[in-house]
This record gives sequence, structure tokens and C-alpha cells, in this order.
Amino acid sequence: MKNYFSSDFKLGVLGGGQLGRMLLTETQKLDIYTVILDNNPQAPCAQVCNEFHQGDLFDFDTVYNFGKKVDVLTIEIENVNIDALDKLEAEGLTIYPKPANLRVIQNKARQKLFYRDQQIPTADFSHYAFLEELKHSYENNIIEFPFVWKAAQFGYDGNGVKVVRNYDDLQSLPEGECIAEKLVPFKNELAVIVARNSDGAIKTYPVVEMEFHPEANQVEYVICPARIDTTVAKKAREVALDVASKLDFVGLLAVEMFQTEDDAILVNEVAPRTHNSGHYSIEASYTSQFEQHVRSILNLPLGNTESKVAGIMVNLVGEEGYTGDVVYENMHKILKIDGVTPHIYGKKTTKPFRKMGHVTIVNTDVNVARKIAQQVKETIRVIAK
Amino acid sequence: MKNYFSSDFKLGVLGGGQLGRMLLTETQKLDIYTVILDNNPQAPCAQVCNEFHQGDLFDFDTVYNFGKKVDVLTIEIENVNIDALDKLEAEGLTIYPKPANLRVIQNKARQKLFYRDQQIPTADFSHYAFLEELKHSYENNIIEFPFVWKAAQFGYDGNGVKVVRNYDDLQSLPEGECIAEKLVPFKNELAVIVARNSDGAIKTYPVVEMEFHPEANQVEYVICPARIDTTVAKKAREVALDVASKLDFVGLLAVEMFQTEDDAILVNEVAPRTHNSGHYSIEASYTSQFEQHVRSILNLPLGNTESKVAGIMVNLVGEEGYTGDVVYENMHKILKIDGVTPHIYGKKTTKPFRKMGHVTIVNTDVNVARKIAQQVKETIRVIAK
Repeated sequence: MKNYFSSDFKLGVLGGGQLGRMLLTETQKLDIYTVILDNNPQAPCAQVCNEFHQGDLFDFDTVYNFGKKVDVLTIEIENVNIDALDKLEAEGLTIYPKPANLRVIQNKARQKLFYRDQQIPTADFSHYAFLEELKHSYENNIIEFPFVWKAAQFGYDGNGVKVVRNYDDLQSLPEGECIAEKLVPFKNELAVIVARNSDGAIKTYPVVEMEFHPEANQVEYVICPARIDTTVAKKAREVALDVASKLDFVGLLAVEMFQTEDDAILVNEVAPRTHNSGHYSIEASYTSQFEQHVRSILNLPLGNTESKVAGIMVNLVGEEGYTGDVVYENMHKILKIDGVTPHIYGKKTTKPFRKMGHVTIVNTDVNVARKIAQQVKETIRVIAK
Repeated sequence: MKNYFSSDFKLGVLGGGQLGRMLLTETQKLDIYTVILDNNPQAPCAQVCNEFHQGDLFDFDTVYNFGKKVDVLTIEIENVNIDALDKLEAEGLTIYPKPANLRVIQNKARQKLFYRDQQIPTADFSHYAFLEELKHSYENNIIEFPFVWKAAQFGYDGNGVKVVRNYDDLQSLPEGECIAEKLVPFKNELAVIVARNSDGAIKTYPVVEMEFHPEANQVEYVICPARIDTTVAKKAREVALDVASKLDFVGLLAVEMFQTEDDAILVNEVAPRTHNSGHYSIEASYTSQFEQHVRSILNLPLGNTESKVAGIMVNLVGEEGYTGDVVYENMHKILKIDGVTPHIYGKKTTKPFRKMGHVTIVNTDVNVARKIAQQVKETIRVIAK
């Protein structure tokens, strides 16, 4: 085995956001020298990594030259220049997740076509190279309202996704490649994180449940374990394993799914990296998703994905009406509660809906944790001075 | 409450070793800007902190000037210039643990006199300003072999402690202030970490047990919870609370104790900081000792000190016969075992007995964890290239 620990080995990471920052906690724990590329010199990783390079993740030369400086390359965000990764891989660099996987996943249309080709259960959809084609399709009665429009590229956090209910909605969509997906009524949104190393060892984390705010249609709580039937949980883990295996994936794959009214599992989308739905694992699991990411891309044995206790995550997002130097109001109050751990991502300025941190609530009883999570959510506020 | 998180608040830490490095994991998690002073530019903290200053921890001006740059000052090692801390405190700087506490603890004779004055149970002892006095005491039949000699100052990790069994042993002792302690036969060495904030909130961690190698007389395993009677555990926690209260301590206090043959608890010594006996808490406890240290010195509410699972710690020390660039042999093998987490402190060169890292083993069953710990200890080797 290669000597990664306290050695001259260099791990490169494209992207320096909060996912990278939480990854650095693990590379520090194992003393793996880690180099970060990000365009923002104030990125959450900038102060924390061994070496920080400023540069555009979409620029071929920047990514290529960065890759030349490291021994293994990984990502904490999938929107990067894949042509540069292809060239680096062809020249012998170890890159996980593989550029070919990133190419499929980066484009939501290609992702959906992959599911269809591979018989992975997913909501029916049509694919359009241009918005104009979608409009024609509607005008010719090929598709009907309501449907879910998804931009093929660069959507994140619900951005680039819209339920189209009428002609006005249709008219307001942005140009570009997209898909129109059947609106499937579902009971639950679930997610499963799969870890796989290059030896082919593969493990899934338990199924988590995304609980939505009844009115705002925003994820409020990520709950592990999901409060669902064990048969449904088993099916969800099998589907997630199936996706990772069919991608011949190496690294961490977060598979988001719908549990339909009749308990079918449909894959919504995947992320080829550590994921918001796995943050609970830092406190609740035997192996956090960030340590598991390191293990999987370096072809180390995978850690135990089981939980020590139940875990619930609440995102800390900037409150509406506040922009400027961040203040976490009532931190003192939430720290009084047993099993509550805040994570602050190191962004100095808040703005409405910006992801500034998260809070994990752990307890031996998931229902107790759920009550505490609500109390945390109603107490802490991310505002500005 | 002061705004510590993502703000211009600066926490200063005297010392940049592994204890500081594990503390930085927590200050990063909460985005508390942390400044480190250490004489060694290769110290484990140097690469990881927000700001590193090189300088001698015993030099008055260095410590004083460093203190002037920060808002709250703490330590990760107690051997620092306390006169500088007294002056900083008199000028209004918040320093925890308090300089007065450090003065008592830094000198083992003063520590023992404190226990005697405060009626804290401890082994009988005599105090000598010079080694010559101890020799006279022996020659006049005031003390008898065997006894335990302890240097008053600057001992660490068993250094500065010797069982004196005969005249040759006595002749070989180094000069200086010391104590001669009654050799008490004991069943177990135990430790309890107490956390106290400046509001006076106080909590103890569970009692841990230091299991010694039957021949080498070295701590091999730190085991939480200790495999002892609940009545003995309760007594040990009460004694630890008593020591912290009588010191009017703020911060983390690690209290090392003996459980005698007749189940009395005697305080051996204390450390005014995070401690090797609390490393298990990173994986096993609801609140790690490092997060608790941050909470206590910033007068935040204390976290839950209970355990999620049993935890055992094995130190990784440099193997005899190897000096040079470190290699962690068989890491791959120990990573295969569920519940095993290595911590590598970031020291690039190993030498015999140097503390290079530790491994935590967690399991719902402490006896299973104990078996795995032995397997880990027999597998991993810290050697040089």
C-alpha cells in the first residue's frame, strides 16, 4: 500500500467549500497532505488546508496544471472542467470519482438517460436540447401540465428545478437543454450514500429521510434512520447499490430517491461526492461520510457505516432580510441542549438562504431527536450585525 | 454572550502539540479564529491553525506579547511562563485555566501540599527542597525503601518519577526539589476528566481505567468505562469534582487516581488541560474533551459527557530501533476492523517511544472493544523508512 500518512503524498481536491472543509478534518486526523483549488480566496477551505491554490474550476489549463501537482485528485463539487480531468487521467493520474462518471452525472439529462438505459427505476421524462423543443412538445399535446422541468446543467439546491403547472410557468423557463419529468406523487424523499473503493468493496449507509416543511416545500430535517418500513429501506439500499455498481463508481455516491404512494422507489438524482444528507454521520455513525470518502478514493478498507445513535441534521441558512457580517443568534441556547453540535462553515458574510452551517442532533431515540431538532430550528437564527 | 463564531474574536493557545491539534478540529468546526504559540515551527498545529507564532513558552516577553494579541488565552501544555500570565491577567486578559491554578499544578510538591491542606485523599509524602535533604532523611531512618521519588518540576509521561528500592537507586536520582511518596499497592489506575466553566457549571466524564502491560509497567490501554464497581466509580467522580471545586478551576482538569487494594481512592496527580486519558471521547462521547475544553474556557454551556459507545485508546509510539521518516506499518490491516479510528499527529520523524498518534476502538461492548484493541496493538507498528 502507498504510504499516505505523514508522507510526501499529496491529495488534490477541486473545490474549497464546506464539503471540502469537513473533508479536511479527516485528512488532518490522518495527516494526509491536502491541496485545494477554488476560485474564492475566502473559501471555507482556504485557511484550513495544507496548500491553497486560487483558480477557476471550469478553466481547462487551471484544472490541468493543478492536477499535475498532486498524486490523487478528487472533487467536492461536480461542476468542474471534465476535459482537463480526461487528459490527466489519460496521462496516468488517479482521479476518483472517475471523469466518465462526472460527465454522466454533471448533466441531468444524461443522468436520466443512463437510468433508462440501465433499467434503474426513475420517473418518466422527455429530453430536449433546447427550451423551444419543450414548448413544441407541449403545443403538440405530447406533454401535459403539471410536469417537472429540470435544467440539464448547473442546477444546485433546488435551483434549476421547477414544477410547471400552466402556460405562464412554461413561458418563464430559462433557455437551454432540459428535461420534462412526470410529477410523481410521493410519500417520502429518501437518500442513501454508497461508498465504493477501487478494489470493488462497497457499502451503503442507512436510508435517511428528508422531511419537508409542510408549506415552504423546503427540506427542514434530514433524519437517520428514516422512519419507514424495513422492506422499503432494504429496497432503497438495493437500488442505491445498483446505481453505484452500474456506474462502476469509485468514491462516495449520494442517491436521492422518491418513495411513491405505492412504496416504489424511484431514483431522483445522484451526487458523486459527500452530501448534505450525510452530515449527520459525523456525530452519529461509526465512520463519517468524510472519512469514508478518503478511505474509498485511496482504496483503503471501508469503515463501518452503521450508526451509534440516531442523528438529525438541520441546515443553518441565512435568514431573509439580513446581509452582512454573520451573527449566530441564540447559539448559547442550543448549546445547552444535550446532543446538539453546531458546525459553522467559516463564511464571514451571510445573505438570504446562503448555507452557513448545520446543526446535528443525536439521541438514542430518533423521536426524541426529532423534537429537539425542531426546538433547535425554532431557536437559532443566522442574521447580520 | 460574546460572538465567537466567524467573528474577529481570537483564541490564543500556548503550545502547538497534538493536544492543540485536536483542539483545532473543534475550533474549526465552530469557526473560532485560533492563534498558536510554539517554539517548534514543525509543531503539529503549525500547518492547521489560523495563525502560528514561533517562540519560547518559558520566555516572559514572548508569552506576554503573545497574550496581548488575543482575546482569551488557554494552554495545551502546563509548562509555560506563569509570571507573564499573572501580568496579563492583572491587565484584564481572560486566561483559563487560571495562572494561580497552573502555579499549583506545575510543581508536584505544591500540588501534593494542596491535597494535604484541602483534605483531598492522596498517598503520604515528604517534601524536600534539595535531593540532599532526601538523602539525610533516609540516613536518619525517617523514610524507608521502597518509596516513589518525584521531581517537583517538568516531569512528563513517567519522566521524573522513579520507584526507589535501594541505596543505588537513591544515589542515581537527579538533583533538585522533589517529594518522596509512600508506595501504595493499588488495583487500578483510574482517571476522571472534570469540565467547569466560569459560571460554575461542572461535569465529570465517566471513570476510565489505565490498563498496564503486566511486565513493562507502561499504560497499554485507556478503557472507558472502567471495569470497576459502580460504588468505586461514583467515589472517583466525587473525588475529582472535589479537586476541581477546591481549585476553583475553570477549563478541563484530568484527575489521575489510584484505586487501592481496599477500594480507597487516592489522587495521584492532575493535569490542567485535555489529556491522553480523554482521547477516546472523540469517537465515544456525545461531547469530545476538546469541544468541552472550548466550551468551558469560553463560558459556553457544557456538553453531555456521557458515552454513545464504549471506547478504548491505544497510543501509537515510535518503535525501539527506528529513527527517521515515519511509516505506519499495517495501517491497512487495522482499518479493516470495524470501529477502529487512527489519529496521526503529523510528526514527520519517529524516534523510540515518541508519541506519534493514537488509535481509538469503539464498540457497544467494552469487552469486545478490549479484544480488538489488543489486535490493533499487536498489528500496527510505527517504524521508519
